[in-house]
Amino acid sequence: MGVKENLEGYPDEELHRMLVEGEVRCPKCGAFDWTEVKRFNLMFTIAVGAEAEEPNAALRPETTQGSVVEFRRTFLTMRGKLPFIMAQRGRVFRNEIAPRRALVRMREFQQLEIHVFFDPEDTSQYDEKLRPLLDYRLRFLRLEDRDTGEITEMTAREALESGYTINSLITYWLVIYQKFFNEVIGLPLERLRYRELGPDERAHYASAHWDLEVYTEDLGWVELVNNAYRTNYDLKGHSRASGVDLSVQTPRGKVAPHLYEPSIGLDRTVLHVLMMSYVEDEKRKWLKIPRHLAPIDVAVFPLVSKDGLPEVAREIARELSGEFFVYYDEKDSIGRRYRRMDEVGTPLCVTVDYQTLEDGTVTLRDRDTMAQVRADRANLMEAVKRFLAGAPLEELGTPLG
Amino acid sequence: MGVKENLEGYPDEELHRMLVEGEVRCPKCGAFDWTEVKRFNLMFTIAVGAEAEEPNAALRPETTQGSVVEFRRTFLTMRGKLPFIMAQRGRVFRNEIAPRRALVRMREFQQLEIHVFFDPEDTSQYDEKLRPLLDYRLRFLRLEDRDTGEITEMTAREALESGYTINSLITYWLVIYQKFFNEVIGLPLERLRYRELGPDERAHYASAHWDLEVYTEDLGWVELVNNAYRTNYDLKGHSRASGVDLSVQTPRGKVAPHLYEPSIGLDRTVLHVLMMSYVEDEKRKWLKIPRHLAPIDVAVFPLVSKDGLPEVAREIARELSGEFFVYYDEKDSIGRRYRRMDEVGTPLCVTVDYQTLEDGTVTLRDRDTMAQVRADRANLMEAVKRFLAGAPLEELGTPLG
Repeated sequence: MGVKENLEGYPDEELHRMLVEGEVRCPKCGAFDWTEVKRFNLMFTIAVGAEAEEPNAALRPETTQGSVVEFRRTFLTMRGKLPFIMAQRGRVFRNEIAPRRALVRMREFQQLEIHVFFDPEDTSQYDEKLRPLLDYRLRFLRLEDRDTGEITEMTAREALESGYTINSLITYWLVIYQKFFNEVIGLPLERLRYRELGPDERAHYASAHWDLEVYTEDLGWVELVNNAYRTNYDLKGHSRASGVDLSVQTPRGKVAPHLYEPSIGLDRTVLHVLMMSYVEDEKRKWLKIPRHLAPIDVAVFPLVSKDGLPEVAREIARELSGEFFVYYDEKDSIGRRYRRMDEVGTPLCVTVDYQTLEDGTVTLRDRDTMAQVRADRANLMEAVKRFLAGAPLEELGTPLG
Repeated sequence: MGVKENLEGYPDEELHRMLVEGEVRCPKCGAFDWTEVKRFNLMFTIAVGAEAEEPNAALRPETTQGSVVEFRRTFLTMRGKLPFIMAQRGRVFRNEIAPRRALVRMREFQQLEIHVFFDPEDTSQYDEKLRPLLDYRLRFLRLEDRDTGEITEMTAREALESGYTINSLITYWLVIYQKFFNEVIGLPLERLRYRELGPDERAHYASAHWDLEVYTEDLGWVELVNNAYRTNYDLKGHSRASGVDLSVQTPRGKVAPHLYEPSIGLDRTVLHVLMMSYVEDEKRKWLKIPRHLAPIDVAVFPLVSKDGLPEVAREIARELSGEFFVYYDEKDSIGRRYRRMDEVGTPLCVTVDYQTLEDGTVTLRDRDTMAQVRADRANLMEAVKRFLAGAPLEELGTPLG
């Protein structure tokens, strides 16, 4: 029996019979001691209200339905037009049988979703949006290459024109998310791929589906974005169950819009940023986190905590904290303070020393190269801004030592 | 039987007997048909894991315990000193018997809490912090004035020196929260009071307790901030149950810090901002929300959607959106667009008209007065910033009409 076979819909007894008659054994220990097949609710149920003895509600297992139920009202209030996008960030809860792999599979996690409601007959607005991106190279693991793992690169134009990515709207968002995880989150292209799911693997509501995955040596390929084209499955379902028509008026009449939904797993994205950023070399352990993602933008230190240096350093920290997330520290040696900032990935350190009192210059230190330059305190705000935006340290002052 | 009497600890049968023998009746309908007394869990319980048949976990009913459990680790990692403050924003869940009064009592709500861990023997750091605030007038409803509702105003100095507010730390935070709700959230002082709770009303862990309450005609007095002085009840409890010592080293030896915890109810605060801001007058229905709290900072409109005005307006909207939350609209008459912004409380509207094309000026319109001035487009960013910070409209341009 192929492990990929779709077992949904089989009765419990039949499943049990297949396990026993097929002599299916534990692949690790060879055990052959199946209990009866048991149904299991992936949702956490709760009893709401003082009178309830039995569960009468559940924690949401996805954020989607909130947007779907509120779609029509929001659309009307905002005087919307299709395509119409709603966005949500929120926690969801699933009673996973086997939560594991660090932050990859958890029972409570956070989704970052956009919900793109659109008329499948008219995605012309996205033809425009996609145009400047048509030469962008998307990376796919096609269904038929699953065994070899071979990546197929194709431009957005090729993906669209061959019919593989269905329409310009879906193609556009595939480009945007791959670009985002590469250029903003900083994951290397060669570690990213869109894994095509087969009809048996997709959720019951999805008519096409690519998971954006990232590769690390520690965890292998892990899904970061679940891209589901849910058609009008959800809107129709809620309309039917509630008796409320959730379709909207469009230039070509009444439409129950289709839903395209890229869903980012926030926790595992953060995990991968940390994993990719962690470096151990001969000198130190440090976090090479992209400058614009670092939790602390800049640290400010007095070289020593006396002779008026702390006062000046605190003043600088106060000034910078209007624009940046600043960490001030005066305890321990300057070397240990640099190392601590390396460990939490602070890209830039500003040090006030005796020379500062004389000529108003400070030392800037780059986390990655440990290089230092001398810069004018008067232009510090601008220098930090430029550095965080990507400028090399040497452009910000006179090299030191 | 006084309704304020503490019934905790009575056995069920005794409670039932008291109801029946006391002939306690429904104060509304006179009914006298008590069922047996039933215990009721205010927490939502869930069954976690595939094997669990019965609930083995609960949704958190407060955010506090997260900070308490993580206190020692955080304190050490941050190389902390007492007093040490942790902060949390999060959802909590309570199976309320009677959720009601709009957003006031809900089964899922959000808390904004700071957790101030301190050494009760040494709050001297707060003597400093409190000093500039000693003349600030706090408003209390003292326990003994509960029947008359009379407010006692006392300065922070009087509250502290009379021993009423225990120490400088607690006094400081009482001042800060009253100031915050008055000056930042914009609730009038005469609608705010600290309601002192008696020993019978306080939570089991609290040694002193004042609720910050707000008054509206619609809802009466409603608690916005629950200020609990929890002593070391929580840290000691977790230490005892886990066998892990959660106390920390201080200059005067090992201490299990005391916890002072102001807890803001976020949802009901938002509700009160909306209620206080809603105005109906002869001309319109509008939201007089404080400028710095408005969800949309500024709207940008072309007077008409032709003759190149939309292009200019969109460009202005794009520029402003670097700094502000901007809403752009070109549908319907300019009057209707102003009214819509009035309804959602947008404090300022910028309108591009034919004169803009000639001399580069735009119209600024004040939500509250509906007055308009003509201002230079070149200084628009600065003008919006000043307006949102409180500057009167007349300072930003030449009066119109």
